Amino acid sequence: MWGGRFDGGPAKIMEEFTPSIDFDQRLATQDVAGSRIHAKMLAIQGIISKIDLDAILNGLATIETELKEGRFEFKRALEDIHLNIESRLAELAGPAAGRLHTARSRNDQVATDFRLWVRAACQRAEEGLEVLQKALFKQASAHVTTIMPGFTHMQSAQPVTFAHHLLAYVEMLARDRGRFADAAKRLNECPLGSAALAGTPFDIDRDYTALGLGFARPMRNSLDGVSARDFALEYLAACTIASTHLSKLAGEIVQWCSPGFGFVRLSDQFTTGSSIMPQKRNPDAAELVRGKTGRVIGDFVALATVVKGLVLAYGTDLQEDKERVFDAADTLEISLAVMAGMFADLAVNTERMRALANAGYPTATDLADWLVREAGKPFREAHHITGTIVKRAEELGVDLDKLPLEEMQAVEPAITEAVLKCLSVEASVAARMSYGGTAPDRVREQIAFWREKLK
Amino acid sequence: MWGGRFDGGPAKIMEEFTPSIDFDQRLATQDVAGSRIHAKMLAIQGIISKIDLDAILNGLATIETELKEGRFEFKRALEDIHLNIESRLAELAGPAAGRLHTARSRNDQVATDFRLWVRAACQRAEEGLEVLQKALFKQASAHVTTIMPGFTHMQSAQPVTFAHHLLAYVEMLARDRGRFADAAKRLNECPLGSAALAGTPFDIDRDYTALGLGFARPMRNSLDGVSARDFALEYLAACTIASTHLSKLAGEIVQWCSPGFGFVRLSDQFTTGSSIMPQKRNPDAAELVRGKTGRVIGDFVALATVVKGLVLAYGTDLQEDKERVFDAADTLEISLAVMAGMFADLAVNTERMRALANAGYPTATDLADWLVREAGKPFREAHHITGTIVKRAEELGVDLDKLPLEEMQAVEPAITEAVLKCLSVEASVAARMSYGGTAPDRVREQIAFWREKLK
Amino acid sequence: MWGGRFDGGPAKIMEEFTPSIDFDQRLATQDVAGSRIHAKMLAIQGIISKIDLDAILNGLATIETELKEGRFEFKRALEDIHLNIESRLAELAGPAAGRLHTARSRNDQVATDFRLWVRAACQRAEEGLEVLQKALFKQASAHVTTIMPGFTHMQSAQPVTFAHHLLAYVEMLARDRGRFADAAKRLNECPLGSAALAGTPFDIDRDYTALGLGFARPMRNSLDGVSARDFALEYLAACTIASTHLSKLAGEIVQWCSPGFGFVRLSDQFTTGSSIMPQKRNPDAAELVRGKTGRVIGDFVALATVVKGLVLAYGTDLQEDKERVFDAADTLEISLAVMAGMFADLAVNTERMRALANAGYPTATDLADWLVREAGKPFREAHHITGTIVKRAEELGVDLDKLPLEEMQAVEPAITEAVLKCLSVEASVAARMSYGGTAPDRVREQIAFWREKLK
Amino acid sequence: MWGGRFDGGPAKIMEEFTPSIDFDQRLATQDVAGSRIHAKMLAIQGIISKIDLDAILNGLATIETELKEGRFEFKRALEDIHLNIESRLAELAGPAAGRLHTARSRNDQVATDFRLWVRAACQRAEEGLEVLQKALFKQASAHVTTIMPGFTHMQSAQPVTFAHHLLAYVEMLARDRGRFADAAKRLNECPLGSAALAGTPFDIDRDYTALGLGFARPMRNSLDGVSARDFALEYLAACTIASTHLSKLAGEIVQWCSPGFGFVRLSDQFTTGSSIMPQKRNPDAAELVRGKTGRVIGDFVALATVVKGLVLAYGTDLQEDKERVFDAADTLEISLAVMAGMFADLAVNTERMRALANAGYPTATDLADWLVREAGKPFREAHHITGTIVKRAEELGVDLDKLPLEEMQAVEPAITEAVLKCLSVEASVAARMSYGGTAPDRVREQIAFWREKLK
Repeated sequence: MWGGRFDGGPAKIMEEFTPSIDFDQRLATQDVAGSRIHAKMLAIQGIISKIDLDAILNGLATIETELKEGRFEFKRALEDIHLNIESRLAELAGPAAGRLHTARSRNDQVATDFRLWVRAACQRAEEGLEVLQKALFKQASAHVTTIMPGFTHMQSAQPVTFAHHLLAYVEMLARDRGRFADAAKRLNECPLGSAALAGTPFDIDRDYTALGLGFARPMRNSLDGVSARDFALEYLAACTIASTHLSKLAGEIVQWCSPGFGFVRLSDQFTTGSSIMPQKRNPDAAELVRGKTGRVIGDFVALATVVKGLVLAYGTDLQEDKERVFDAADTLEISLAVMAGMFADLAVNTERMRALANAGYPTATDLADWLVREAGKPFREAHHITGTIVKRAEELGVDLDKLPLEEMQAVEPAITEAVLKCLSVEASVAARMSYGGTAPDRVREQIAFWREKLK
Repeated sequence: MWGGRFDGGPAKIMEEFTPSIDFDQRLATQDVAGSRIHAKMLAIQGIISKIDLDAILNGLATIETELKEGRFEFKRALEDIHLNIESRLAELAGPAAGRLHTARSRNDQVATDFRLWVRAACQRAEEGLEVLQKALFKQASAHVTTIMPGFTHMQSAQPVTFAHHLLAYVEMLARDRGRFADAAKRLNECPLGSAALAGTPFDIDRDYTALGLGFARPMRNSLDGVSARDFALEYLAACTIASTHLSKLAGEIVQWCSPGFGFVRLSDQFTTGSSIMPQKRNPDAAELVRGKTGRVIGDFVALATVVKGLVLAYGTDLQEDKERVFDAADTLEISLAVMAGMFADLAVNTERMRALANAGYPTATDLADWLVREAGKPFREAHHITGTIVKRAEELGVDLDKLPLEEMQAVEPAITEAVLKCLSVEASVAARMSYGGTAPDRVREQIAFWREKLK
Repeated sequence: MWGGRFDGGPAKIMEEFTPSIDFDQRLATQDVAGSRIHAKMLAIQGIISKIDLDAILNGLATIETELKEGRFEFKRALEDIHLNIESRLAELAGPAAGRLHTARSRNDQVATDFRLWVRAACQRAEEGLEVLQKALFKQASAHVTTIMPGFTHMQSAQPVTFAHHLLAYVEMLARDRGRFADAAKRLNECPLGSAALAGTPFDIDRDYTALGLGFARPMRNSLDGVSARDFALEYLAACTIASTHLSKLAGEIVQWCSPGFGFVRLSDQFTTGSSIMPQKRNPDAAELVRGKTGRVIGDFVALATVVKGLVLAYGTDLQEDKERVFDAADTLEISLAVMAGMFADLAVNTERMRALANAGYPTATDLADWLVREAGKPFREAHHITGTIVKRAEELGVDLDKLPLEEMQAVEPAITEAVLKCLSVEASVAARMSYGGTAPDRVREQIAFWREKLK
Repeated sequence: MWGGRFDGGPAKIMEEFTPSIDFDQRLATQDVAGSRIHAKMLAIQGIISKIDLDAILNGLATIETELKEGRFEFKRALEDIHLNIESRLAELAGPAAGRLHTARSRNDQVATDFRLWVRAACQRAEEGLEVLQKALFKQASAHVTTIMPGFTHMQSAQPVTFAHHLLAYVEMLARDRGRFADAAKRLNECPLGSAALAGTPFDIDRDYTALGLGFARPMRNSLDGVSARDFALEYLAACTIASTHLSKLAGEIVQWCSPGFGFVRLSDQFTTGSSIMPQKRNPDAAELVRGKTGRVIGDFVALATVVKGLVLAYGTDLQEDKERVFDAADTLEISLAVMAGMFADLAVNTERMRALANAGYPTATDLADWLVREAGKPFREAHHITGTIVKRAEELGVDLDKLPLEEMQAVEPAITEAVLKCLSVEASVAARMSYGGTAPDRVREQIAFWREKLK
């Protein structure tokens, strides 16, 4: 209880409350990289000596090794990653370390480190999305002619192919990739050299440090440099939107595994049993992916609320930015990998798909379209005629392609035997030849398109 | 990168993805308590033998000790807290452990554990709020006659007392306490015995287990028992609302410390310096409290989004409930403690408060009120007259209580010397004698009220 | 385009931007009630004359009539509901109207009006929830022995009764009612008399006005009185939580209407067709209820974000409170009514429910329980044996109650013919006799409980 | 009360609940444009006759005129904008109108209309952002040498120029523009021709309709075409991020108007008075902009929650998309215009800015920097020396540039008279010559950059 902890004295609480090292240690690599390029620049500009530079670079190299080998000791008393590294550098490099902080501040350091981290996270997100696209694509390639019910409102609408259905997700993920690429590009300006907020009197070379860290250019305004977090929000927004797509896809899997559907069977590796019900095979991983969407939305909301409340320049409220971004990144990345794994060894029950594809008069639109095309009816009239025929089929308890011709003709004399060719789900699917439609021939074109794109 | 990790085989990813033991180990005490009462009930009902019961209780006692002493080894391979404890019990109690899972399921176990945890969290929240109320109350007691500007729209409105201002927060926190109390009461029904979702054929006694765990009664519907999470949402909503109050209060502190205000000075323990600017004393702790509000809102959004998306009964999406609740609880509890600490040794600059209280013609309303009361003007007319007089004072660059009487009379002849007694900030404050008003006499009544309530 | 509109001059934009009359006219009744009681109090206290009082009360009566008959003309130029009514009162009552604003401010007026509105909204929410509870209860009463599959993870878990399933929602809605009742109770303190923020020098009687408006007491702190909006947040939180329940229930309906389930058929009044697919019967209303949950969550987030960002006392940011609350109230109330209507004439396909209830070996737990109960196996061993038997049944393609006895005995010799009585879904359901379980006898007890509660 | 309304019969509720015409009438122009190009394409492809085409085009032209002149009558009974226009077309064009719905569905119609609307909204957002950039730029141009305090943590950090401060916002808004531009580009693919979900058997030309509506190409997957709403989410995310910037800027104004600051004075057109306090000039418009940020975040949350919960293809839940987008667009656009107006006639109190810029030892960093540069101290040591000197100045109650040289030398003998040139706020600002720094010469470069960009 905090009331009790508080008796131990406020200082103790602050030690738990304000340090960020527990999470910002994930910026260690970026922090070392930033210090290295800053030191080089200071030396080139004559602000520090070559000897100091060497001491600093050697110290940083040692720190880098310690980090890689897990030997670097992070200390809460040193608050954050910057002071942890600076303090270790002081041990390794002596007074030279003290000169490294010339012409910079923790404000521009953390802004730089964090941009570097988010830039890499955008890259990882793109790669993870591509891995999932490939897994979906592979299943799609194998199911160009597999027919399943196409749902709207979770009602049978028109039959579609499984490949077509999966490729819809490949499209969504492609746009998600685009959002991460745009975010990475927009954030790629370097705040280093903004110092605390106003720039510095030292004659620094911001182009050198910016380019050295792979940025396109230095940021143009130092106040903006230390306070901007829209890049983190944009990243979180892209994560949120991508997560909604993963949630949809995960929701499909949960549904497809349900006994009312039975469309797919997950491998044992992606299901779990029940502690009480011996027969269960639960699609936990898909459910968890779906559930984790909420958390990513929450991450975006959290940071947007923080940023909204601040004036220029830096405020400690912004310390909340990193955990939200790390959480969203971890969540998105593992979700993508799990989904890709799930699709890689998914078994498809094509018979069950085919059977349900025929339920609920899904070719009624084909009948209406035939009446327009062949009998010259306006669509609205054709729609009405078809409704009447469906009702009759329902009364007789037969599918549309099993309804006797005379029953149809009783409703609409213009109907001829030719119509029967349109009323199977295979015919329906094959007929949808418009660009982007579900006809296997059209889907094959898309398969070819994505094979090229995803290779 | 997850693409790479995925090469290591899906099973490996699942080990990282689905286990909840990393966080649900916080339910260990609750899980042991639930198992103990369940075992006793099974024995009383003759479902397990007395010998088995003893073995189970002894094993649970050992586990409890191991947990307390930090010796209990949590294993990811055992997924969650329930299987971790069950597995350890099997080592300690042999086959008897296998009988403990009779007539229950992980679904009702976790629902029970989690309710117990949230119930305790409500209690801690109430206590933490009370600690802060007391810290605010103590400062209020010392500042019944300290005058500060009362702001609306961050503009000088009317002078108020600092005690009055602080007691407004005591009121808000009292309502927050009420929300946690209501939540704790509403959730206090026991799901244990719901089994997987449908109840159990064993002749169990749910009243016994419910009362043994301090619940008011067993839940009436087993499907509801395993799937309901509205108790967690209600807790998170109460946390969110309390956090908005903490954010407001923290925002006041940040502002009061700002040079434009200078109303208070935080102790060194609750401020930090700057790595670059030697003169800085930053109110980090207050800023961090303010920033963390976003995260609590995000926690609520995350779980609401999850719960919204599920049908009955349990789905693994719900595994996301605990981290959000733990995060909000930790955040709220430490924020309350930090705020209490901050107020405990806050130094108030009464002169600076008094000085700014007089800026911006804050007693104009008093003038208008005088015109109504003493000169019989309708309020709307009095308001208009006063506006004209304020304008005149502004032109002359003087405060309202320094404006020559004849200047006022030039605007409104009915004004007499008597008005001057109303126009100082002290007079203004003293005059606001309506119940709940800022007059020191009124505030003393509230101090007495809260002294009684908070003792 | 606003760039263009802006050319028309800033004043014009402000006319569109700041007035609240377009939405706060919904507070008209509350505003008149508040003015009436305030006027009476002023007269009793001798602050205004009896003659002025009569003029004011007559004027307010006229305004009330105009409002009821839709003849009251709201004017944007008068900004908000308070000035609209005050201005009309000035026309009707002359100078007396000007005296009504003595000892009050728009800040405490709007706080009072809004509390009255939210209090009534809590009452309406409770009533709407009860209407839906009754509709669910009625269906439940008719389906005590109707067996359906009980799902966890959308997988067949154990059979349950439809009544049991529906009563789970009746329980959720009962807790929702409790939340609205608690919110209504907590907010029931009167801010009127707080004036702008600091109270008033006039000798007002806040108990009189508070009780006259049905409040339990006046608020104790004037700064709190004008600035507190936690009552609105608590209302929105209760709406949000209730909406998650509606979303779940709506999601069930969408699923139950889907061809893979086919459990229910909505009446024509609650379905719509398709503009292109003549056979469609879409559960639009349920989908829309489900979708609207997002909007209610958004309303809560919006207001929490606003309140979080303000210091004491009033800021215009708070003008955003009303639209969010009105939107959530309208959404919740119509959603409840639509859901109640939907359930009132829902047709249940009991055969389809029964058929799917038997899919997926849902009585496997019953077999395991039998092994514990009758053959004395520890549950964990029984669970393992049952898993093996389910696998055998799966290989033979038969349901568990159709698996030959000798097949079971080959796995576990202790199994006798007696087990067969447990393996039908009827037996399974009937056996779950624990309190809160799905056995029809237990459900009948709950039906009796709710019949009493809901009458 | 909905319970009561419900007595009137469910159909009545549905009339209020499901129609979207009250808000989707804003898509009227887009819907007509889509119908026109679709009709032309049908004629070119020989699917409808030239005579029908003419009838349709004439009818649509009439409808367009009726819309423009506000004479078009929207009917709730016709549900949505598509059926409203189709029905009117039937009156005007007779049976030809019935042929227009060939090879399309409301699903692809609404997706097309909505994309067109959001594309235009992106354009308007960009323009509105530019208008505000220009207003900020104009003030910046006039205040290149106006010195104000630069805050971090709302504490005096280092002096900056007002121009520099304003240009930070110009930078933020530039990135906001980039986000809208990217969103507009990514969404610019045409769903028309996706039909209900699966494409159509009619031989349509999707390139023709896509290009005719200004899209870059048709969408590649019909299921994706009718169900994708990530474009709306991306738009809402861009609105949210831009709103956080507006909120920050509005927060600055509220603060700057506060008596503790007094930096700016808003014109009368952007302030309002008080009903009770005659002296008040409240920055309502800024407060309202700040408050409305919450609502835009809420809009994003609402739609993300909806989209997350759906599987393919269309569900009526998606009907919730439009109101959220319209609300965010209206909010953003008017907020931008109001902020631009506010800055256009803002009066800056340069003396007050200058006075506060000197409070709190803001040039301490300059002293530390001097010690590094001129006395060769490592930064960390210089930082420590400066801290001691600041403490001494605080004891003596003088600003740093007024502290006697010998006092400084007592702390650090290396200090010479030359240091005094660094310690005024003017010197401090002038020294920050690093790229992006606050030195007037540097700011002038940025002014030149933006003059070019914004012309």
